[in-house]
Amino acid sequence: MMGEAAVQILIPLAAVIGIGFALCQWFLVSKIKISGELGEENGYADNLIEEDGEEEEEEGVDRRVAVAKCAEIQNAISVGARSFLFTEYKYLAIFMVIFGAIIFLFLGSVKGFSKESEPCTYTKGRLCRPAVANAVFSTVAFLLGALTSVLSSFLGMEIATYANARTTLEARKGVGKAFVTAYRSGAVMGFLLAANGLLVLYVTINLFSLYYGDDWEGLYESITGYGLGGSSVALFGRVGGGIYTKAADVGADLVGKVERNIPEDDPRNPAVIADNVGDNVGDIAGMGSDLFGSYAESSCAALFIASISSFGINHNFTATLYPLIISSLGILVCLVTTVVATDFFKIKRITEIAPALKRQLVVSTILMTVGTAIVSFAALPANFTLFNFGKEKPVKNWHLFFCVSIGLWTGLVIGYVTEYYTSNSYSPVREIADSCRTGAATNVIFGLALGYKSAIIPVSAIAAAIYVSFSLAAMYGIAIAALGMLSTIATGLAIDAYGPISDNAGGIAEMAGMSHKVRQRTDALDAAGNTTAAIGKGFAIGSAALVSLALFGAFVSRAGIETVNVLSPKVFIGLIFGAMLPYWFSAMTMKSVGNAALKMVEEVRRQFNSVPGLMEGRTKPDYATCVKISTDASLKEMVPPGALVMVTPLIAGTFFGVETLSGVLAGSLVSGVQVAISSSNTGGAWDNAKKYIEAGASDHAKSLGPKGSDAHKAAVIGDTIGDPLKDTSGPSLNILIKLMAVESLVFAPFFATHGGLLFKWF
Amino acid sequence: MMGEAAVQILIPLAAVIGIGFALCQWFLVSKIKISGELGEENGYADNLIEEDGEEEEEEGVDRRVAVAKCAEIQNAISVGARSFLFTEYKYLAIFMVIFGAIIFLFLGSVKGFSKESEPCTYTKGRLCRPAVANAVFSTVAFLLGALTSVLSSFLGMEIATYANARTTLEARKGVGKAFVTAYRSGAVMGFLLAANGLLVLYVTINLFSLYYGDDWEGLYESITGYGLGGSSVALFGRVGGGIYTKAADVGADLVGKVERNIPEDDPRNPAVIADNVGDNVGDIAGMGSDLFGSYAESSCAALFIASISSFGINHNFTATLYPLIISSLGILVCLVTTVVATDFFKIKRITEIAPALKRQLVVSTILMTVGTAIVSFAALPANFTLFNFGKEKPVKNWHLFFCVSIGLWTGLVIGYVTEYYTSNSYSPVREIADSCRTGAATNVIFGLALGYKSAIIPVSAIAAAIYVSFSLAAMYGIAIAALGMLSTIATGLAIDAYGPISDNAGGIAEMAGMSHKVRQRTDALDAAGNTTAAIGKGFAIGSAALVSLALFGAFVSRAGIETVNVLSPKVFIGLIFGAMLPYWFSAMTMKSVGNAALKMVEEVRRQFNSVPGLMEGRTKPDYATCVKISTDASLKEMVPPGALVMVTPLIAGTFFGVETLSGVLAGSLVSGVQVAISSSNTGGAWDNAKKYIEAGASDHAKSLGPKGSDAHKAAVIGDTIGDPLKDTSGPSLNILIKLMAVESLVFAPFFATHGGLLFKWF
Repeated sequence: MMGEAAVQILIPLAAVIGIGFALCQWFLVSKIKISGELGEENGYADNLIEEDGEEEEEEGVDRRVAVAKCAEIQNAISVGARSFLFTEYKYLAIFMVIFGAIIFLFLGSVKGFSKESEPCTYTKGRLCRPAVANAVFSTVAFLLGALTSVLSSFLGMEIATYANARTTLEARKGVGKAFVTAYRSGAVMGFLLAANGLLVLYVTINLFSLYYGDDWEGLYESITGYGLGGSSVALFGRVGGGIYTKAADVGADLVGKVERNIPEDDPRNPAVIADNVGDNVGDIAGMGSDLFGSYAESSCAALFIASISSFGINHNFTATLYPLIISSLGILVCLVTTVVATDFFKIKRITEIAPALKRQLVVSTILMTVGTAIVSFAALPANFTLFNFGKEKPVKNWHLFFCVSIGLWTGLVIGYVTEYYTSNSYSPVREIADSCRTGAATNVIFGLALGYKSAIIPVSAIAAAIYVSFSLAAMYGIAIAALGMLSTIATGLAIDAYGPISDNAGGIAEMAGMSHKVRQRTDALDAAGNTTAAIGKGFAIGSAALVSLALFGAFVSRAGIETVNVLSPKVFIGLIFGAMLPYWFSAMTMKSVGNAALKMVEEVRRQFNSVPGLMEGRTKPDYATCVKISTDASLKEMVPPGALVMVTPLIAGTFFGVETLSGVLAGSLVSGVQVAISSSNTGGAWDNAKKYIEAGASDHAKSLGPKGSDAHKAAVIGDTIGDPLKDTSGPSLNILIKLMAVESLVFAPFFATHGGLLFKWF
Repeated sequence: MMGEAAVQILIPLAAVIGIGFALCQWFLVSKIKISGELGEENGYADNLIEEDGEEEEEEGVDRRVAVAKCAEIQNAISVGARSFLFTEYKYLAIFMVIFGAIIFLFLGSVKGFSKESEPCTYTKGRLCRPAVANAVFSTVAFLLGALTSVLSSFLGMEIATYANARTTLEARKGVGKAFVTAYRSGAVMGFLLAANGLLVLYVTINLFSLYYGDDWEGLYESITGYGLGGSSVALFGRVGGGIYTKAADVGADLVGKVERNIPEDDPRNPAVIADNVGDNVGDIAGMGSDLFGSYAESSCAALFIASISSFGINHNFTATLYPLIISSLGILVCLVTTVVATDFFKIKRITEIAPALKRQLVVSTILMTVGTAIVSFAALPANFTLFNFGKEKPVKNWHLFFCVSIGLWTGLVIGYVTEYYTSNSYSPVREIADSCRTGAATNVIFGLALGYKSAIIPVSAIAAAIYVSFSLAAMYGIAIAALGMLSTIATGLAIDAYGPISDNAGGIAEMAGMSHKVRQRTDALDAAGNTTAAIGKGFAIGSAALVSLALFGAFVSRAGIETVNVLSPKVFIGLIFGAMLPYWFSAMTMKSVGNAALKMVEEVRRQFNSVPGLMEGRTKPDYATCVKISTDASLKEMVPPGALVMVTPLIAGTFFGVETLSGVLAGSLVSGVQVAISSSNTGGAWDNAKKYIEAGASDHAKSLGPKGSDAHKAAVIGDTIGDPLKDTSGPSLNILIKLMAVESLVFAPFFATHGGLLFKWF
């Protein structure tokens, strides 16, 4: 078996390797120059010697002008994104201080801020650290989680805005080079996030254990604050970023495409920079902090359950840190997988892009399965017992291997099903496109039905994963399955981030007036990114479901509940109310997008009407005002949905008690999963149905098009409706279900002691 | 206390009075003549002496021609509706035979068709009737429930198609007369259904008890088949009728309004008769069998729980039949309420219609509350015990009074909230109308958000009702609360049925070329009916939620489960899968509507393109083909969603066992309620937003209109999308959640004995 020393080396080493690899990739991307030395054509000399015959000179467009324009646009996007994030972080700082204080006060008050040590709950006959220590360390862990999330998503956004114009420039040389640039940049984000998350968590555990010593119960209980911190930032990142990006997108489309009949990403549209900024703050920073939150939470849930099982009670360090070992392994596996994508296979044709991305998922899943088998036998005792709501459950090491694997493969199944329902290579999206013949109404009816239907297999797969992993290793098994699904997060994020980077690259190509060929290449990169974005959302919701269930299990254990009985009215009212929350939350976020978009529409209309020469391209629009509108609106609008998520568990726990809160968590989980999957897939399908008509690649597609036909107009309406569904309300629901669960877990000691005031009074 | 003899008289007497009252109302409606004796102008002589100055002569339109046209159109609608129902009944007959056989075989196999008596489950030390008797009598009860439902909905449909043209004719005399005609006809349906349901149930209990004697456990267990029968018919009625009506409506609108720019109900539109038939088979027969199902199921759930509580074990006849006494009281209360509407207050202005309908709800609720107080003290012992999942719970008679009342008043709250969100007198719908300025996409985004939001208060109210009634009287309390909500079903149905009758009346006025004033009046009747239809749907879903929970409780009791623990993986996978079912089901029904509508579109287009003189009004379109398309499509399309609902509990129970099935029921309940409420309200809001723009009654509305403006076109798209949501998928979900629960209850003995094969094998 792997010794403690080996673990103490392996985990930080893997994290450092991950960070180093990310920096390497960044360095490679940075070799593409876009400013200053234009005349020297750095990194551009080799464009004449690409082998596959696709290379070409820029026809007629002055290189220097185009490059300078790219630099200028990239700068505008970068400034806009940074300004949004900095403003968002100001709000976040206030929130973190307030919520940190709440954590401290609530948890400190559990035993009236007493500094006396108390008997441990699970390790009988020993003394554990006082409750007030839990208050202090949970607060610190919360802040650390939040800061790590902020840092990772900020760096991700920086590299994304850094890479977009570089991808455009590389697209001049060929689709392969552009692909590698976009994918490498995505990998920077993926590896930074996974490695940072692991490293900070590892260091925190080691630092906290200086105080906690052999009180592992207390140690891992306070560590759960890390998950809460990560997820809180994700809430505002996802919701704020989601509102930002869709307000800009919808606003730009409603005036630009529908009223003024100018193409997407046309530089005359005042909202075009805001739209591109939105891709970065929503899809990059938002998605990054979402997945980071899942990752942190599943690690915390697994560590907490391990600490109160035989691993923790017998102080088996290696076995307790099994979740982190899996994550370390994941980083190494993803590293190999990434090298395969960037260096082994060369993309030569645009049809190779999507398969290359999908191959990434399959390769990393297979490698990870093999690696997990080895690690599980090396790190775990052959037989051990796990805590199962007051009972002991005997488990074998290969059971945990199965749990990780089922998580991994369930993720892949969800990804493929998502692709089937949202890619225009398959019949579902083509049917949607076909329904545009009879107008927008049938398009919407069929699209909603498609989204509903697309939940069947993912939900069944999640149910099967839950059943198997729970049967094998109780709630720990579910946490480990979630971690398994997320173990290849670096690759998953690379693929995800690749999408918005390519999208931006296409926008920049359009705005900089690049040649038709370049735009064709960036469009192809973007189209592949659209599908992988949908796959990424599928992963995010699948892992969110497993993570919340694991957190729910940890919460229930910590709150000392042995059964959550649906037949108890306290639980049932929680269940039905919880099932309503995703609707309430979606109503808020969708209306927020609508309101913000309407403001954007007014501003864009005003500029078109009042700025002379704008439509003719003689005057530059005022991009900054649109960026400001999106920023202000999203920051203002993210508060009510954010408050709903943060406050509900506190109210439910304090006034209705842990039983009702359990119901709320279970209800919001089982209902939120459906809404999230169907929203994302409906939106994705509409988007690709529109693209299918626009591309006109088959006779069927041609019969529906071209751009501007009635069917296309109907498809555009569907796409616009889908925008807030797939990029704001849908993905935000992941956070809703996870965050409420982790918050309940952190506050469990308080609710268990002082909760349920209302029922106590009456 | 009320004696057994008094109960034996009161219940059938109330039922007979209800039937008599219904026939009286029918007679009053039948006095309006529409054919044959045209020349004599029967019932038309008094049109010159109406007092309020609104009366008028038909201007320029030849009376005889108009009346003859009305008669002709009514006949066409009536023939179409009858032909659909008869075809539907043929399918139903096959289904009933097959499913009856399944019930008999499954329940008979519980003890291997043994004819030996066995020890009772709840009354210790006694012998009860054999399991095979339960199989026989459950099957008989199932068939009786199905037949009663068929009969009631058929009669309701007959009076509705009989009354529509008469309402049109009365509208010539004034809005008050037309209102009374439509309302009276609705009342015929309401009273026939409530009274028939009660009478058949009462007679069945008395006949079954000839065999069962003092084995009340067996008696009321087999009676639950009655609920299953009623609800199965409702499934096909709701789904088939819902697909029928919306296929015709959407098909007619897509070609007529959008492509050909002719008004709604224009006689040149070939689908116009199918559309009017749809109102009757969907909203009248479908809604009727839905509410009948709820009513039968809540009665059965309450009776079953009573039979295994002290009421049943001590053989307290009066107390056991308390649910039926409440229903009897309801019939009498509704009778008084109806007389208030038709004879005490006279409607003179169109603005008085909606308040008059709402007053009906309030009056019946108040009267019923008072009546329940009296009956509860008269019929119930002061103290008694109820069965509460294996434990005994002491209850007082006023507790049950509270349960009935909270059901009643929760229904009213849901009704009013529904009105707030769907009537164009309030800001939510006006906001939706306003969002049409920026096109269909914003209309849809805001509309979906409105529907989601509209679930908050109803779900909270249902949760509160569940908590209070469960705390007071366990699952019996919930069944009684459901029954309370449904006790004023006669009035509720009268109001509901009033809507489609008025809608039809408007259609007939348009088609018969009646004067502008008549159409204004029928439009006003229709507009009020739209809001009450939404209120009716709110009632239906609210009662469905309570009923399913009560049935769920009865199922759990019968299956011998004491806790349904969310933390058990068997339960949890059921929960998450169950929460997915409403989506699957909605996907099926929405797609069915879409497909059927597309067929209709083709046919309507074909006729417009190929029938010469159709657009000019010189040739009559071929209505019959459109009726046939709707009939065939709906009957074909109703099979898969119907099968999903009927087969899921059987598979879950047989292969996964009662625990997983419990999860499925709870999951589909808590998730289905949200989808149903939001679908209905979104659709209702879009419909009324469109009407708001069309009516142009305020400056705001005028700024969006008139008909044909861009905003109006966007509103029409929303309305069309909302059609299947509000009239097919949304209301059908009521049936999904109720039917799966009652089916599980009926099959509980089988599942408890032989279920869970899959887990037994592995």
